[in-house]
Amino acid sequence: MATRIALLEAGGTADFRQVDLKTKRLEDGSDFLAINPLGQVPVLRLENGALLTENPVVLQYVADRFPRSNLASQTVEARYCLQQWLNFITSELHKLVFTPLLDPMANEGARQYAHEKAELRLGYLDSHLQGRETVLDGFTITDAYLITVLNWSRTSGIDLAKWPAIKTYMERLLKRPSVAKALADEFDLHNAKLKRKAET
Amino acid sequence: MATRIALLEAGGTADFRQVDLKTKRLEDGSDFLAINPLGQVPVLRLENGALLTENPVVLQYVADRFPRSNLASQTVEARYCLQQWLNFITSELHKLVFTPLLDPMANEGARQYAHEKAELRLGYLDSHLQGRETVLDGFTITDAYLITVLNWSRTSGIDLAKWPAIKTYMERLLKRPSVAKALADEFDLHNAKLKRKAET
Repeated sequence: MATRIALLEAGGTADFRQVDLKTKRLEDGSDFLAINPLGQVPVLRLENGALLTENPVVLQYVADRFPRSNLASQTVEARYCLQQWLNFITSELHKLVFTPLLDPMANEGARQYAHEKAELRLGYLDSHLQGRETVLDGFTITDAYLITVLNWSRTSGIDLAKWPAIKTYMERLLKRPSVAKALADEFDLHNAKLKRKAET
Repeated sequence: MATRIALLEAGGTADFRQVDLKTKRLEDGSDFLAINPLGQVPVLRLENGALLTENPVVLQYVADRFPRSNLASQTVEARYCLQQWLNFITSELHKLVFTPLLDPMANEGARQYAHEKAELRLGYLDSHLQGRETVLDGFTITDAYLITVLNWSRTSGIDLAKWPAIKTYMERLLKRPSVAKALADEFDLHNAKLKRKAET
């Protein structure tokens, strides 16, 4: 989803392959774990055959491939600042808070712990977003990643009403054409998968 | 600890300030949350006054500041590969597995979940480390971060015997002069803190 948003913003294209994250199979039945043993998306295969994994890395690759899109600062010092936000999103929000909440195998204690950890982190994010339209100046890959993660709050029992700046940010971002299209595309793919399953 | 190792490898220096991570106070009694609202170390204050947070970012800064130390690949494509490993360590190992295990406030379910998540991730790491002395070619900041995180296994109930390549890697790295010195320095600081507490 985050990579999809970034590519739409950049005007780039990719040959998308859907992965069933439960069975770890591609649509042609082949084994996704042979491509990424961690079983996670995104995986980006470059033109030279190399594979890139991990959201912050794939997103930086897309931004660097299309530098005129301004999706990532190209100066050294501003890049550190961008990487700080990517790392906060990937480690503090994605893995510590949302991974257990989205995981149907997670036990109740793990879910409770994720909710406890959410308080400080979402409070910190809320302070930062007060009076801001984007995480940094202008839309960057940090926003592509953050809106993807925040969108999970809708299905993971995190009520953003406590954090009004996050809520406003999310409502604004969900209306942004790239984000709206990426969400609609993933929604269609999800429904098509459910339909195929019902038919078999 | 990871930054300390990287600085020792680079021959760089920094003015270290100890933070009590429980009380979130510096040694002079000042409020660490005013510096980093997330209450986490490391925080690096640059010569121009800017603050850097998040391990992967602080480590890349140290590597870039001392490029002759070869602590991070300086070519674009190799840097993506290095960032993949930094992101794996920070998100999958540090936050998902070790944060709950090191947190005295974590509930039993959260600890259990962290142990469940450890299996796939340490298995993946073990496969990668088979026949390798370092994560990438030569010692890099990925090793400084990884040995710091793996060292927590000793106090968090993770038995590395199941993963012999990790165990061998860890034993070798703990003998590396920079790692041994960083550990000894932190051990001394910890003991001095306990002594001060006992006296008050």
